[in-house]
Amino acid sequence: MTEAVVADDSALERRLQDALDAKTKPPGSLGRLERLAVELGLAQGTDLPVADPARIVVFAADHGVTAEGVSAFPSEVTAQMVANFADGGAAVSVLGHQAGATLEIIDVGVASDLSALDGIVHDRVAAGTANLRRVAAMSHEGLEQALAAGRRAVVRAGDAGARTVLLGEMGIGNTTSAAVLTGLLGDADAATVTGRGTGLDDTALGLKRSVVAEAIGRLDGQRDDPLECLREAGGFEIAALVGAMMEAPAHRMTVLVDGYIVTAAALVACRLRPAVRRQLIFAHRSAEPGHALALRALDAEPLLDLGLRLGEGSGAVLALPLLRAACTVLADMATFESAGVSNQNRVQRTRCLPG
Amino acid sequence: MTEAVVADDSALERRLQDALDAKTKPPGSLGRLERLAVELGLAQGTDLPVADPARIVVFAADHGVTAEGVSAFPSEVTAQMVANFADGGAAVSVLGHQAGATLEIIDVGVASDLSALDGIVHDRVAAGTANLRRVAAMSHEGLEQALAAGRRAVVRAGDAGARTVLLGEMGIGNTTSAAVLTGLLGDADAATVTGRGTGLDDTALGLKRSVVAEAIGRLDGQRDDPLECLREAGGFEIAALVGAMMEAPAHRMTVLVDGYIVTAAALVACRLRPAVRRQLIFAHRSAEPGHALALRALDAEPLLDLGLRLGEGSGAVLALPLLRAACTVLADMATFESAGVSNQNRVQRTRCLPG
Repeated sequence: MTEAVVADDSALERRLQDALDAKTKPPGSLGRLERLAVELGLAQGTDLPVADPARIVVFAADHGVTAEGVSAFPSEVTAQMVANFADGGAAVSVLGHQAGATLEIIDVGVASDLSALDGIVHDRVAAGTANLRRVAAMSHEGLEQALAAGRRAVVRAGDAGARTVLLGEMGIGNTTSAAVLTGLLGDADAATVTGRGTGLDDTALGLKRSVVAEAIGRLDGQRDDPLECLREAGGFEIAALVGAMMEAPAHRMTVLVDGYIVTAAALVACRLRPAVRRQLIFAHRSAEPGHALALRALDAEPLLDLGLRLGEGSGAVLALPLLRAACTVLADMATFESAGVSNQNRVQRTRCLPG
Repeated sequence: MTEAVVADDSALERRLQDALDAKTKPPGSLGRLERLAVELGLAQGTDLPVADPARIVVFAADHGVTAEGVSAFPSEVTAQMVANFADGGAAVSVLGHQAGATLEIIDVGVASDLSALDGIVHDRVAAGTANLRRVAAMSHEGLEQALAAGRRAVVRAGDAGARTVLLGEMGIGNTTSAAVLTGLLGDADAATVTGRGTGLDDTALGLKRSVVAEAIGRLDGQRDDPLECLREAGGFEIAALVGAMMEAPAHRMTVLVDGYIVTAAALVACRLRPAVRRQLIFAHRSAEPGHALALRALDAEPLLDLGLRLGEGSGAVLALPLLRAACTVLADMATFESAGVSNQNRVQRTRCLPG
């Protein structure tokens, strides 16, 4: 960010904090929600940020590395779940519907042919990535296409008026890619970043860990080239998430980051373009052990800690009401002055309410 | 609870868990939200719990102990904030409006005369409690009246169709009462249960602690009589909260518990009638240090941890969307069978989705 941008941000941040302190509540008594209000104002560059319209964007793709047995179940489940999203029966579908957010599912590289499936966006690069254990997951061209698919999704969201985009993903095998990226960009070893995903047993976890360790070892020299790390580790949906985040600053759109996979994408995007960080709100702390490390690397304090490990954007949807709450505090709460509540002076205000 | 009730609950709990495991997600992958769904089903005695209609009930009253300087600011702020609630400008007003919950404010013992104030329920016992440092905060009759006011509020909520009641409070000085109750019923000393409230300095905190320590010492012999502890410690709004909780089981209504004060009331209510516990969902972990202890004493795992210390029911309102989310997971998500997602058998299901 330029010096001018930083100066603007700092003035805005002060105004937002002053506005919060004038509200009829003891200063700081809404805790993390107050910081969230400031973060939202900074993300959107305004004293009155809004959460709505909110759009969930879920990128789906398959991973060649599943051939190594890093996920107990076959890639077919990716396509089956995409159909379930489109049918409205998946967790993110019902949670999104209830939360009043629209849902866009984008096939950026599912292995099965989904061209006949209605209700999703077809913006695919290829039928799954290559096996990252053997070769780079993506070609240079494939990476560019996936990044562009992500950018297009945010442009569409912007055209539809969205002020918050909730990013989610679906891709059997993608915790392996996320682990490799987190290990490389978060400077951690395979044991730290590799988890059981959705329930690997000890043997399969050991295998997954060795695949991740090998990849981290092979790419050790590329740590300073996040795009090359991404190309090697995959997948198409993670690259699309990176592209989506890279597009967000131009729209001053809030990006609500779901769990481990989306956070791994955030590591890449923020390394490539530090201005992306300001747009990101982190929804929750996932049960996957590597997520804590990725969050620390991004200096991110997530809003929820519910032991979620589903993906899909489900955690982001659960956090959306908190964004709305933070916005309404800024926009709608009375001030001490307007409500005629005793607040005499700033020293006393800090000792004012309630008992 | 009788053995028959426990057996019923255990069968229902199994059905709720089976229903969650049949949904298109890896078992347990929605973490705390899944346990919440079970808790809601048990609270309402149904396989399909609902969160709505939801009503926020805020009891307000004043505390004679403020004469001791345990709160830096005068009791007048209680009345000013009640007016602010009624005007729609307080945190709980704007958060409640946005969350689609109705709000009922009940004067159960504000010191100032609020009889001319529209938009609140007038069900007052007296103009504030007596000073708990000198005498019992409430007479026997006053305690009964306050408990009855609480019961009436839940009956009104039930008559209005409410399925969730969100309990909040307003009362300058009430963290002192909550600390005394938590110390007595949670077997803890004054240092553990007394916090800065909304920003006491070290001197005032020391004073508050000594008031709490004295009261705990004086009432040490009454620990087995939670009603007498309540009568001695006050306040009217805490007694009303206790009465409200005691009424909830008859309506199988979910009670969403706000912060430290409401949790102190829960300690009393659950001691008096253990069946109350099943109705309670704990919204958040407050920044007040005594709250963690009170939660442990109730074996409660709150949903949010946002460093809130405002009261009013604000934390309960922030947690309400999570109750709705848990209900929609049970009611609306597809099953593996209905969605045609691979799940072959229960052993494999635990390793199924997503990568």
